[in-house]
Amino acid sequence: MTFRIHVRVMPRRGLLDPQGQAVEGALKALKFPDATNVHVGRAIEFDLVAADQSAAATAARAMCAKLLANPVTEDYEIEVEPK
Amino acid sequence: MTFRIHVRVMPRRGLLDPQGQAVEGALKALKFPDATNVHVGRAIEFDLVAADQSAAATAARAMCAKLLANPVTEDYEIEVEPK
Repeated sequence: MTFRIHVRVMPRRGLLDPQGQAVEGALKALKFPDATNVHVGRAIEFDLVAADQSAAATAARAMCAKLLANPVTEDYEIEVEPK
Repeated sequence: MTFRIHVRVMPRRGLLDPQGQAVEGALKALKFPDATNVHVGRAIEFDLVAADQSAAATAARAMCAKLLANPVTEDYEIEVEPK
């Protein structure tokens, strides 16, 4: 069965996020002062063939641990969507 | 009212996505051959003060159009979550 996996990798809370700060400053300069606490990370999507939804989630977690996220500085969330 | 906005900015379908291709190749090298059609984009999150959910979505769309996404090469999705 094929699943569409959406992974969101964000800087770990409490660590410096210079890209988020830059975007927050730019939004303020563009007259969007109501946006605060801005964080910027990576969005990764892929198709994955797996036996079922839980096998797909397990494989996606392994990919995050090995390649997609930095386990020291980043957190990730995985969404598994049947395709 | 404060909302948490999640924006996912992805390369437009059909355009070259070299970062996605690189990740797909790396996943194959790491023995994850079942991941295909890999795309890499940006995930942006922020708090937004707005009157209601629809005002928050409208403001977030304006931010995407003006700063967060490149309207020529990227597509975006917005999720508005009450905080």
